[in-house]
Formats: sequence, C-alpha cells, structure tokens
Amino acid sequence: MAFFNRLSQSARNVAGTTVRVSTPIRHKASASAAAPKLVPDEYDGPLVKTQVPGPKTQELLQRMDNITRNTGTIQLFADYKASKGNFLVDVDGNRYLDCFNQISSVPLGYNHPALIQAVSSPDLATSMINRSALGVFPPGEYPGRMEEALLSIAPKGLECVQTMMCGSCSNENALKQTFLQYRTKARGGAMPTQEEYDSAMHNQLPGAPDLSILSFNGAFHGRTIGMLSLTHSKPIHKVDIPSLDWPASDFPALKYPLHQYEQENRVEEDRCLQMVRDKIAEYAAKGKPVAACIVEPVQAEGGDHHATPYFFIQLQKILKEAGAAFVVDEVQTGGGIAGTIWAHEQWNLPEAPDVVTFAKKLITGGYYYKPEFAPKLAYQVFNTWMGEPTKLIMLEAIVDTIKKDNLLEVVQNSGKIILSGLEELQAKYPQFLSRARGMGTFIAVDLSSPETAADIVTRGRKAGFILGTCGKQSLRLRPALIFQSQHAEMLLDELDHILSEL
Amino acid sequence: MAFFNRLSQSARNVAGTTVRVSTPIRHKASASAAAPKLVPDEYDGPLVKTQVPGPKTQELLQRMDNITRNTGTIQLFADYKASKGNFLVDVDGNRYLDCFNQISSVPLGYNHPALIQAVSSPDLATSMINRSALGVFPPGEYPGRMEEALLSIAPKGLECVQTMMCGSCSNENALKQTFLQYRTKARGGAMPTQEEYDSAMHNQLPGAPDLSILSFNGAFHGRTIGMLSLTHSKPIHKVDIPSLDWPASDFPALKYPLHQYEQENRVEEDRCLQMVRDKIAEYAAKGKPVAACIVEPVQAEGGDHHATPYFFIQLQKILKEAGAAFVVDEVQTGGGIAGTIWAHEQWNLPEAPDVVTFAKKLITGGYYYKPEFAPKLAYQVFNTWMGEPTKLIMLEAIVDTIKKDNLLEVVQNSGKIILSGLEELQAKYPQFLSRARGMGTFIAVDLSSPETAADIVTRGRKAGFILGTCGKQSLRLRPALIFQSQHAEMLLDELDHILSEL
Repeated sequence: MAFFNRLSQSARNVAGTTVRVSTPIRHKASASAAAPKLVPDEYDGPLVKTQVPGPKTQELLQRMDNITRNTGTIQLFADYKASKGNFLVDVDGNRYLDCFNQISSVPLGYNHPALIQAVSSPDLATSMINRSALGVFPPGEYPGRMEEALLSIAPKGLECVQTMMCGSCSNENALKQTFLQYRTKARGGAMPTQEEYDSAMHNQLPGAPDLSILSFNGAFHGRTIGMLSLTHSKPIHKVDIPSLDWPASDFPALKYPLHQYEQENRVEEDRCLQMVRDKIAEYAAKGKPVAACIVEPVQAEGGDHHATPYFFIQLQKILKEAGAAFVVDEVQTGGGIAGTIWAHEQWNLPEAPDVVTFAKKLITGGYYYKPEFAPKLAYQVFNTWMGEPTKLIMLEAIVDTIKKDNLLEVVQNSGKIILSGLEELQAKYPQFLSRARGMGTFIAVDLSSPETAADIVTRGRKAGFILGTCGKQSLRLRPALIFQSQHAEMLLDELDHILSEL
Repeated sequence: MAFFNRLSQSARNVAGTTVRVSTPIRHKASASAAAPKLVPDEYDGPLVKTQVPGPKTQELLQRMDNITRNTGTIQLFADYKASKGNFLVDVDGNRYLDCFNQISSVPLGYNHPALIQAVSSPDLATSMINRSALGVFPPGEYPGRMEEALLSIAPKGLECVQTMMCGSCSNENALKQTFLQYRTKARGGAMPTQEEYDSAMHNQLPGAPDLSILSFNGAFHGRTIGMLSLTHSKPIHKVDIPSLDWPASDFPALKYPLHQYEQENRVEEDRCLQMVRDKIAEYAAKGKPVAACIVEPVQAEGGDHHATPYFFIQLQKILKEAGAAFVVDEVQTGGGIAGTIWAHEQWNLPEAPDVVTFAKKLITGGYYYKPEFAPKLAYQVFNTWMGEPTKLIMLEAIVDTIKKDNLLEVVQNSGKIILSGLEELQAKYPQFLSRARGMGTFIAVDLSSPETAADIVTRGRKAGFILGTCGKQSLRLRPALIFQSQHAEMLLDELDHILSEL
C-alpha cells in the first residue's frame, strides 16, 4: 500500500524535536484521493516544531491549574485563529491533523468559510447579545430556525423537536418526557391527582413514582447525577457519586467484521435481548417498572461497541410490548459522521424510535420525539435558556454545507479508506491491532493493551496527529465531516509508522 | 406620591386596544430620578398598539406548537433587533418595560453598546466558529478570560472556578465535587479502592455511595433528575418524575419588613435550624449521610423567601460541625441584582461558603469552590463542552460595564425606590398587597390570591409591562442592572393604576 512508504520529507530530530512537512500520499485503492480540498486554504499536513506539549502550553496549563485545579485532561492549548480545516494549531505553533475533533463536536472543522459567513450576520449578533428565555419570549425567527436547522434533518417519523443546552441535559429532559408519558398513559390520559401533586413536593410516592430507565453496560449517556446512573463506561466517571437503582443489561460484545461472524454475533445479540426482557421483568417485580430504555447506536465512550440492525429492531419490539419508550442517544453518532445524518437510519426500523437525542456535531443539544411524548401541561419541561438561539443560525449553515458539499459521501468514502486501511494494518501488525470497526468515519480499532493505546495517542500527538481512545484499549477516530481521502491517507501512513516503531 | 397621579398622556381604547405613550413621572423621594439614560437611545416608555398577545405572536405560537407541542409557557415572540435597554419589543411592534428580564438573565438589558462592541470582535467570531472541548483543547486565551471575567468578581475566599453550560449543570457538577471531597475525606485522603471502582460501574455500594444532599422546602435548584430531587418549589415541576430520597428542611417563613419582626423571625429561623440538625441526624441514622447542603440566598422560584444573615451564619456552623459542605446557589441572586455581586456577601460569614454556583446574569453557568473541593483525579468532573468560551468574552464586557457605570449603585437606588413604593402601595391597597420584600432590585410582593397575581401580570402586559410571578401568589420583579429610577417610577405608577382598577 502506498501509505506504507514513509514520508521522505520528514526531517526528524531537528533541535531535539520532530519537524515534519507531510505531503499526502495517495492510497491507491481510492479513486477520489485527488479530490480538491473542501476548505480551500487548508494546510497540506501536520507540522511539529516544539516538544509536545510545548512550552507555551505548559505555561498556560500551570496558570489554568491555579484556576480550576482540575486540568489533568488538558492535552494542549489551541490557537483557533490559526487552525484551519482538519488542522488544529496549538499555541506553540504546532499543527495537528485532528482525527478526534474536539471529542467529535466540530462538524465542519476549523474556520470553515460557511461558518465565518454565518457568524458575521447581524442576526447572529442580535441573537447573541439578547439571549432570550426561549420558553417564554422566543425570537420571532425561532420557529423558522427550528424548521430550517432541525426539522429539515429530522429522523423519519419524528415530527417534534426541543432544543436544550448540552448532551446530558438533552437526555435528562428527553427521559423526563418519557416518564410524563408513562404516567399519563397509566392514568388513562388523566392529569395528575391532587395526592400526586402534594406527594411529589416531598419526593414521595405516588407523585414521585418509582420508575426506572434501562441502560446498557458500557453505555455513556452523560454525567449529571441522573444520567450517570445510566452511564457504565469507565469507573472514574462514576466512583464516589451516588446513583439511582436503575437496571442495566449487557450490550452485545460482537466479533468484527460483523459480516464474517453473523452466526456467533446473532447468538450474542439474542443473549443480550433476553437479558433486556429479564431486566424489565425483574424491575417490574421490584416495583420499579421500566419507563424507557436508552441506547447508543454505537457505544462510543465505552469502547465503540457496535450491534446489528437485528438487535435494535428486536429491542424496539421488546420495549413496545413492555410499554417502555425506545430512546436512541445519537449525541455522538448523529450529525453525519456515521455516513447518514442519523446512525439509526441504517437499521431500517419498522417505525421511528420514540425519542432521539442529540448534541455535539449538531452544536446544540436537543431531542426529537413523537407528539404523544410531548408534555401535557405547561412548565413540566422548561428551564431559563432551553437551548441557545445562536447555535441554530450556525446549524443552518452546517446543514446547508453538508448538502452542498455532499459531505455524507465524503464521510462514506473516507470511512471506507480508513476502515480498509486499518484492516490491512491489522493484518500487518496482528500483535498490536484487532477488531477494526466503523460506521462512516466513526471508527475504532483495538490495541493490545491500554498502555499501547495511550502510547499511540502520545506518539501521534508528537508527530502531529490528534487521536482519541475509548473503552479499555481502543483507538477512537472521530474526524470532522470534511475529513477527505488525503487526510485518511496521512492518518494511515502515520499509524503504520508508529506501529513499525513500537 | 407623584407616581399615584395617572398618566394624562395615556389614550385608552384606540381601536379596541391600549395605546400608551408613557412619560416617566419622577418619584419625589428619589434624588436621582433625573439621571441620564444608561443606554442612550433607550425608549421613553412602553407602547402597546395591538391586542396582547398580538396577531403575529399568535400566528408564530401556532407554528411553534407544531414543532414542540410544548408552548404553554410562551408569552410573546420578541423582536430583539428593535428591543433596547429595559424595553422589550414584540413581533407586533408593542414595547414593554421589562421588569422580569428573561427570567433575570440579561444583565445589561437589550442591545447594550458594550455588548454590541464585544460581539463584533474577531476573537468572538473565532471562539464561536471553533468551539473547543474546554477540558481537553482550551483556547490559549481561556485562562486569561477566566481570570478577567470570573476571578475578578470571585466571592471572597473562593479561589477556584469552573465553567459549565447552565444553572442545573452547575449545581449538578458542584454537588458532584462535594461528593468526591466527602468520600476522599472519609478515606483519609486515599484514592478509591478497586472494590469501589468495580461496584460503581454497577451503581452499587461502596463505589456508588448512599450519600445525600440536604435542600429546603420551597427551594429551586434546577430540573435535571438529580437537581429536581432538591427542588421543592411547585408541584408541576416535579410530578410524575422519579426522585432521590434526599432530605429537605423547612426554610424560614419570615415576616416583612424583617427589621420590624426581629424577635418572631429569630424564633422561626431557630426552628428551621433545629430541623436542619434533625434532618442531618435522621439521614445519618438512615445510612444516607448528608454530604452537602444547598441553599439559595433568597428562595426565588419558590416565592422570594428571605432569611437573615443570622440564619446563614448558623447554617454554615451546623454544616461545618456535621462535615457537610455549604453550597450557596446564586444562580438567580448572583451578578449584581442583589445590590452586591453576590447576595451572600451581605451575610458577613466568618469564612467563605465551600461552593457558590451561578448562571443567568453571569450568562455562563459555573461555580466557585475552595481548592480542597477540586476533583483529585482527571475525568471525574468533565464533559465535552464544559461551558462556552464566547460567554466569557461577553462577560468581561458586562463586568467592565458594571464597574464603569456603577451599576451596583443603580441597583441599590432603584431597589430602594421600588421597595418603598411597594410599601406605600401596600398601605394604600392592604386588601391586595402584603409582604413587600427585597434585596437590591430582587423584589417581590404578595397578592391576595394566585388569581390576582396572574391577573396583574396579564393587565401589566396589556399595558406594556412585563412582570413575573413566583411561589403561590407573589409578584416577582427581576429587572436588568440598568433599571434606573425613571423605570422604577413607571413601574410603580402602573401598579398603582392596575390596583386602582381591580
């Protein structure tokens, strides 16, 4: 493979650090590798000219640590003015091919012309200065913006949408709506009784009902106390924080590539589906009926665990029979990175999920829902801000760009290049790599140990590549939607180089 | 009083609606009534020219209802371009003196010149387009912005600060830090054990500890599932949503004005303090020790319940003895409306609270804390966005304006005019008004019934005044920091008029 040829232009050990001027090497398998840059003035490659982290980052880190005493997660301080397209530039002037993309949250990369234009509109300034309490005094333009930015990309069959501030809040409020719907249904459509109102004020039954939400081991649904009870990704997220007693089922642990292991995977998925049935029965018997089940199309933070459409179709069926809502958490998978706007589109469900939540690449939090899941009374789902109107102005430009530049195709194409490249690397380095898997450019591969995964991320950063990890020992790739074939080649080339040096 | 003279300029019943061109009438008690406008091109008064809600609002409401099916809270659709200073303009061209100010969240009113300038900076555009995952790749400018915008107004004795997205998330994460600190202290400073890590993954003891947070009846701390367990303001906020079993104590129900009822109020505060001690003991015995207590300086949403400095000083003492953190929720009281940047400054505590949370007027969520409440390990308090950098650019301009225009003095002065005016109205209309109370322009007065309170808000809106309610039957005033004596006069004049017509 072409990308296995090391870059002759790389000049290492200049002043004790790595200086590399990458020239993209075309992967022969890809016909579109010579595609013109989607962001015209994007850099040609990474460039590392100081130690990483550089001296300015280190100085700022110290300063920041005086402020928060919580900086163990900071990798570098960025110079966002100088960043462009897929390349993040840090305060020390190093530039990185960003394959992690602010934890998958900057859909069009850095300083995209469409967004530069969008934020220069007087509308945006007005919306920013005069931030409204959207539930009480929304701007006149807001319904139109909701239609343009959000309803235009609504999952099929979901006609309502509500904005919120972040992913955790989206899940919180989406699940609140499932509780409201569950209780209203249980009362035969009647409003709450006086006894329910009164007891709710003291967190008591029957007004504060003992309902539960079913999640999956390995899931990540946020870090507020409620959502953390549904999150089972890593112990450090949860330890020392109190939790609700809510059920969790196993999520399928499949073999990849999925099409090669259909039979074994089916057995595993059936086992997990049975566990879902068992948990629902167990919690009903316990007096804590399951009002809803929340699931990610791919368990992301927990380790990029995929399941097949069969699993989700059966899951929906089980939940429907149990009278529990089917909530799909597309906070990480939504917005195009799966090669479709919504990952769950690829399941071909017989009917829409009841609720679909989003954030990250949609740049605003929120959720879609069926009308029957709307609150019946005013102020049941409400807060001061209920989202941020400026985000919809930008999201309109993002949605337009996705369509205009055929970014879903770009994602599909780059995804194929990366995944097939990882499979080749896996064959070349079986001692290090396994289980390459992906959906669009939402891709991961397992390393031989957590230490090796961390080591690759560090080596990548020193060479000008920002990579992520997830689960115990997976390398997580989450590029922007403008990550083209040439970027895929650069990434594969660098991974090959790193693996060859391990 | 001058403001009791009705406006002769008011022309009612023009085309079946109310057209009023208010001219401010100076309240004789106020020396500063003739103060020049803080926002130079602000309107002179309200102007209502259609039915309220007007036809355009009604049309948009229908359109919005198709999108969310949750529009029972919307009062009007606004034209934020046309709004200025203290005056909100709606899509029908009506303008209102805004005494509720987007639920107290727009500190400098509409289209303030300082913010128009702040949002036109290229820094803001860069920060907006390239939104960073602040916990991993913060912008190089971020530490400086945290210092300028947030540390410059930090409550005395609190040297750390963390940004978050909204009020609920600020309280969620602040309380998480108190759990972490509580458990670390319980382990004598040691890190979690393997057993704790393992059990936390399954929401089980000992990793998911059975700790509780103490709140107060009547409190409002947010609407996420965890925070809703601490909220006891109105049944509609809570009914049908599951809750954590966490203790709540009574908050003092005092008589106003406070200085007239010192002795009776002291008895009531002592009763509540004893109940705090009892609840702490009860939950310790139950195996759910209280890790922290969260309290608002004034219970806002719950009905503007005040307590005296004595109460908070004693509360802090009780919590310290119990080893529970003292968390002050200044989401609604913070940012200057109390006449000081932080309401709790006025208590003169012997030492700082352990944590102070904020949002609303600070335009970003977040919380201050003592260094010992910082998480000990990376990724314990973390999420994708961890706030929004653009807000700090604007907050810098807000903080500068508060200082430059002496807005705390403006608030103190307007607060005195409003409160003394309400006391006079209370004497004039004892059948309708009672319990006028306030701190700065954070002011409320009770009406004779919930219906009367709602009626006054409706009549106010039809006459060009936006008012709020809280608790069962209180009128809630939450103007911007630029609400001057002339605005106070207009408001009092209108209230007098409404009351005279009831």
